[in-house]
Amino acid sequence: MKTVFVLLVAVVCHSAARYSADWTSLDGRPLPPWYDEAKLGIFIHWGVFSVPAFQSEWFWWHWQGQQPPDPKCVSFMTKNYPPGFSYPEFARHFHAEFFSPGEWADMFKASGAKYVVLTAKHHEGFTNWKSVNSWNWNSVDSGPHRDLVGELGEAVRNRSLHYGLYNSLYEWFHPLYLNDKKNGFRTQDFVKQKLLPELYNMVVRYRPELIWSDGDWEAPDSYWNSTEFLAWLYNDSPVKDTVVTNDRWGAGCACKHGGYYNCQDKYSPGQLPEHKWEKCTSVDTLSWGYRRNMRIMDLMDLPTIIEDLVSTVALGGNYLLNVGPTADGMIPAVFEERLRGVGAWLQVNGEAIYASKPWRVQMENTTVPQLPRQL
Amino acid sequence: MKTVFVLLVAVVCHSAARYSADWTSLDGRPLPPWYDEAKLGIFIHWGVFSVPAFQSEWFWWHWQGQQPPDPKCVSFMTKNYPPGFSYPEFARHFHAEFFSPGEWADMFKASGAKYVVLTAKHHEGFTNWKSVNSWNWNSVDSGPHRDLVGELGEAVRNRSLHYGLYNSLYEWFHPLYLNDKKNGFRTQDFVKQKLLPELYNMVVRYRPELIWSDGDWEAPDSYWNSTEFLAWLYNDSPVKDTVVTNDRWGAGCACKHGGYYNCQDKYSPGQLPEHKWEKCTSVDTLSWGYRRNMRIMDLMDLPTIIEDLVSTVALGGNYLLNVGPTADGMIPAVFEERLRGVGAWLQVNGEAIYASKPWRVQMENTTVPQLPRQL
Amino acid sequence: MKTVFVLLVAVVCHSAARYSADWTSLDGRPLPPWYDEAKLGIFIHWGVFSVPAFQSEWFWWHWQGQQPPDPKCVSFMTKNYPPGFSYPEFARHFHAEFFSPGEWADMFKASGAKYVVLTAKHHEGFTNWKSVNSWNWNSVDSGPHRDLVGELGEAVRNRSLHYGLYNSLYEWFHPLYLNDKKNGFRTQDFVKQKLLPELYNMVVRYRPELIWSDGDWEAPDSYWNSTEFLAWLYNDSPVKDTVVTNDRWGAGCACKHGGYYNCQDKYSPGQLPEHKWEKCTSVDTLSWGYRRNMRIMDLMDLPTIIEDLVSTVALGGNYLLNVGPTADGMIPAVFEERLRGVGAWLQVNGEAIYASKPWRVQMENTTVPQLPRQL
Amino acid sequence: MKTVFVLLVAVVCHSAARYSADWTSLDGRPLPPWYDEAKLGIFIHWGVFSVPAFQSEWFWWHWQGQQPPDPKCVSFMTKNYPPGFSYPEFARHFHAEFFSPGEWADMFKASGAKYVVLTAKHHEGFTNWKSVNSWNWNSVDSGPHRDLVGELGEAVRNRSLHYGLYNSLYEWFHPLYLNDKKNGFRTQDFVKQKLLPELYNMVVRYRPELIWSDGDWEAPDSYWNSTEFLAWLYNDSPVKDTVVTNDRWGAGCACKHGGYYNCQDKYSPGQLPEHKWEKCTSVDTLSWGYRRNMRIMDLMDLPTIIEDLVSTVALGGNYLLNVGPTADGMIPAVFEERLRGVGAWLQVNGEAIYASKPWRVQMENTTVPQLPRQL
Repeated sequence: MKTVFVLLVAVVCHSAARYSADWTSLDGRPLPPWYDEAKLGIFIHWGVFSVPAFQSEWFWWHWQGQQPPDPKCVSFMTKNYPPGFSYPEFARHFHAEFFSPGEWADMFKASGAKYVVLTAKHHEGFTNWKSVNSWNWNSVDSGPHRDLVGELGEAVRNRSLHYGLYNSLYEWFHPLYLNDKKNGFRTQDFVKQKLLPELYNMVVRYRPELIWSDGDWEAPDSYWNSTEFLAWLYNDSPVKDTVVTNDRWGAGCACKHGGYYNCQDKYSPGQLPEHKWEKCTSVDTLSWGYRRNMRIMDLMDLPTIIEDLVSTVALGGNYLLNVGPTADGMIPAVFEERLRGVGAWLQVNGEAIYASKPWRVQMENTTVPQLPRQL
Repeated sequence: MKTVFVLLVAVVCHSAARYSADWTSLDGRPLPPWYDEAKLGIFIHWGVFSVPAFQSEWFWWHWQGQQPPDPKCVSFMTKNYPPGFSYPEFARHFHAEFFSPGEWADMFKASGAKYVVLTAKHHEGFTNWKSVNSWNWNSVDSGPHRDLVGELGEAVRNRSLHYGLYNSLYEWFHPLYLNDKKNGFRTQDFVKQKLLPELYNMVVRYRPELIWSDGDWEAPDSYWNSTEFLAWLYNDSPVKDTVVTNDRWGAGCACKHGGYYNCQDKYSPGQLPEHKWEKCTSVDTLSWGYRRNMRIMDLMDLPTIIEDLVSTVALGGNYLLNVGPTADGMIPAVFEERLRGVGAWLQVNGEAIYASKPWRVQMENTTVPQLPRQL
Repeated sequence: MKTVFVLLVAVVCHSAARYSADWTSLDGRPLPPWYDEAKLGIFIHWGVFSVPAFQSEWFWWHWQGQQPPDPKCVSFMTKNYPPGFSYPEFARHFHAEFFSPGEWADMFKASGAKYVVLTAKHHEGFTNWKSVNSWNWNSVDSGPHRDLVGELGEAVRNRSLHYGLYNSLYEWFHPLYLNDKKNGFRTQDFVKQKLLPELYNMVVRYRPELIWSDGDWEAPDSYWNSTEFLAWLYNDSPVKDTVVTNDRWGAGCACKHGGYYNCQDKYSPGQLPEHKWEKCTSVDTLSWGYRRNMRIMDLMDLPTIIEDLVSTVALGGNYLLNVGPTADGMIPAVFEERLRGVGAWLQVNGEAIYASKPWRVQMENTTVPQLPRQL
Repeated sequence: MKTVFVLLVAVVCHSAARYSADWTSLDGRPLPPWYDEAKLGIFIHWGVFSVPAFQSEWFWWHWQGQQPPDPKCVSFMTKNYPPGFSYPEFARHFHAEFFSPGEWADMFKASGAKYVVLTAKHHEGFTNWKSVNSWNWNSVDSGPHRDLVGELGEAVRNRSLHYGLYNSLYEWFHPLYLNDKKNGFRTQDFVKQKLLPELYNMVVRYRPELIWSDGDWEAPDSYWNSTEFLAWLYNDSPVKDTVVTNDRWGAGCACKHGGYYNCQDKYSPGQLPEHKWEKCTSVDTLSWGYRRNMRIMDLMDLPTIIEDLVSTVALGGNYLLNVGPTADGMIPAVFEERLRGVGAWLQVNGEAIYASKPWRVQMENTTVPQLPRQL
């Protein structure tokens, strides 16, 4: 009873407080409790990159961004596409004809996950919803001609799962971003005309309970106006009481500012951290987006996943497990097998996972017990 | 000698004056003299609409904009394209593989025209140059992967022709424009984020000597910031001394404000007007853009064109004759025949056209002499 | 009167006689009288070659058949298509969405022509009708999904024009033909499994009054079984009384055997020949099939065509004037202009053309009178 | 020792004997011994049907052949393709860009299989090799532009696996076949011009050690000339000593004539049969060809497969396990997992499988021991 009372007081205080747009204030916000209890989430990388589905979701950058370009990507394009073919032309093959949000959500539910995070916009800039700031480069104007963010959100929430959205701050090839970058980030045309109007709009429209920010590392948070955005998010947005965020809000923020910490991709701490964290990782160890030419040896098998989940939770982390759907809207069967396998394990062992608290010791002197490998 | 002296004085005075951003001041600017002397120009409608090349360059609007849509356009799409095909997907077929700016410019030169006006951006919003405000919806990112505005400009100028650019103020489907419109044009997001940055950029980059403005009619000039733009154009732009504009700068401007007057498309006055004007008209009487299914009876024949040119010049007008190139970059042979025909006629009769001044009488009591019709 | 009597006798004898499968007998067959009276025909080259519409209807051969290949064709493909793109893939773009047989036939009627010859099958082997011997390589299984030969035939006959079909004996790339060729034409797999079943079928199904044979030159008539086919055609086919053929029935046949003589393409004799002949020629002097990049200077103008027609008829020939429709089913407007121009001239001067007989002199000492050139 | 001696005698006799083209003689041929020892084979269904990859490899028939058509297939096409899209147009998307015969063969080797059977031609008629009787409807002229049958054969043999080819006698939509069928199979145009030349050619060219015949059921073996073909195959073909065939050689042949018996697809006898048999079955229980929208619950899991293999071998059968590769040339990872799983099991238990002989009892009174199911 006493505990509950204290909690109520905390909520009241919290309601009264407003966060100011600086890290000291923002970092002081307590994490909404649903997140730590959830433990397991499903991450979904889906976008135009799912069409070439070659190498990884970074294909565009490896092909035409980095210097020198990746010869495998260049050769892939040269061999298979006409000269002058440009990445945006892939969008029309992002067809999603088999996309059934209900079937996806059933699968995620069956995996035992408590939250789902979809790439609303990856570094390519294509939005999986009808952003007015991304004309003809979004899933309603092009390709699927569907509101993927909205459709999946509804299905996920109907199954009592929390719904989060991944959003990339930077866009590899957006001309306004490239211009700001050329100006040493002293101009903010991209942020003011593209990024922020779109991001505010997205939050108001889809009310995500988790914002998985990414693509922050090239510029300081002052360029992105991150603290202003977070202050609004925590003070005035429609999800101010329940929303969770991560720590990618500008160069130097990772592992230091924001909500929970992701630090780097696939990061695991060596010992129990003081700050809530999340390990994001992918069934396909070589990519977050679907790869048409993935092989079974590139994938984590079920025992590996379960072991990784257990270790993560033991260290106080959440586990965000990624699958890459195909351009036609299917979760590949081999990924479905993994997700349902995790779910079957949690049916038996979920008590030791959900809403658990780390013990004072994470690792004994003995070696970690080995789960049997799959065939 | 004396004349030259006076002219120099005039130039000096002109240099000293600055136009203010109101119609009284702007309308007082004298038209640079090259324009009235030129008499004949070639108009080119080229864009993504050249791909469906069906009905007219207004195809997108007739198909998906107007209510109710044109059943012919709807039926054309239903019969020939997969469900969900969207207009922007036409862009990849805007291939321009045969586009030879030199051949085009030779043809325009041979027609006897003294200026050329290309659609830099029509109502569809697709720019025929790499506008940073029109990412993936321009001729360098998509389709031809070429700077059509730049390439043609260079070829045209190499043949001592004046180069003009058509620019549509409004864009049928731009989400920011639609939003401003919904707000009764009390917001200007479209103008400030899209239209003006792009237009200034275009002028600085390509230095057009004629800006053929269009698509102004839905909003007042105060929405478009037209007077500010024109003041800059006349005072500070790189083409301030030579640039000519027309009269489409906002609802109510046509026939009243700006540079020379177009009034309506294909407009001819009944008697000699006091203000310099231009008749724009098209060889294909049913369309400005290329139509794949045009028939010979839809086209003006050579005698009709010459008669129209003569009447226009007699009334003090310029004659801007339009041809629509194909998506693969050709001026159809039947248009080439017309252009070369006009040129052959001007070889003989040009003295009565170029730099001529209207006589005090335009039409005698007798009927207009009939030129023989073609077969 | 006497002439008529003799003619009747001849007809009676003819009915009783049967032709044997040798040139002596076949060459003795009198030409059905409609043909000489007709004087003017329209030739139509339409097929998959109308899709690349580059260089000429021989594109496939120039690209992939001849050694060495034409570098222009190779470069065209390399620049514009993905590696591995094969010619048959063009077929799906042979869409014919604007093809209106009635409009075509009206245009041919208006040209003053009395017969129309369509390529039922060119050297590429694609049949413009549903040949069971050309599965998935015909206009009903692929591309237009229409019976082009049948539809045009009906429209043409409804306007009282005679209907002829062009048929290529050889097919550049048919594997059975290539095999027979490798065997020095001592095997006839192609002739027996492909060519003849198809050709008989075509005659029975469409009852052409003219068979314009082509592609004969690589093999002797004995390989093609030409005399057997002609004997059947003249004796037993449904068009035995009215059908006309030309002279391309095997190496060495041209100008020597068969029906009327074409000799070579665009051939004109220097003086009045003893045997009925036909000059086939094309408005586009560089191609029979449509070329997307044709220029006006590549085309015959109207005076040239009329002069050519007159000279041909004066020398006892028929004049078969070719136009190449587009892949979407239009006769380009510039060709329509020529056809209607010829028709307008014939409205006035037809009496001197139709059913005329050559005079004893074709050319006077004076030079040929010059018609005025078009602009 | 004695057994061996008898066997040698049999071999000597066999060499001397010639089979006559009747079932009594052909059915008397002893099965080459490699086949019974092999026990496990991999079946591969790959063709143009792998492109729509919808419902099953029978998609074309369900869409356009059967009456009434399957509404799911019709709706799939209507929703996703333009009107008039025809099945052969799928071929260009049969791209096989990731097809690595070596990787496939390694995977088959790792599965423990001793033979591999590829669809050289399924009912659609598309040949996975350059058949001269299937112009533009084979994998070298179209789609992959590669000799799939040849490439896989070489890789498979390099790993000491036996190589077999599946061949469909009938072709759903071949016009010559449809014509023979309309004639009550009293004509044999299809058999003589298409089927047999192609089949003989395939055997001579690729020397398959197994011919998996199919598509026989609509016509008697006398229509297919099956006994003549088999007599040649056993007497004179380059694989006469080692080739194995199945029992699908004409209506009424299944389970009665030919080599080993397949009887029906997925057939298992209730007790030990006297004649050598093979159970063919598919990891995807709903299809032999790849389905883009397959779900994990549609697939056999590893324990089920192993149990099925064991039961089949216990009853004297061979087990031919099917996987459907994608149009881009991958064996989906979930299939790879099954194959490698079987191989891992055989590493341990292969002694009880390979070259084993059925015991006198197949099933005890006790129930079959259950293997643990996968998660």
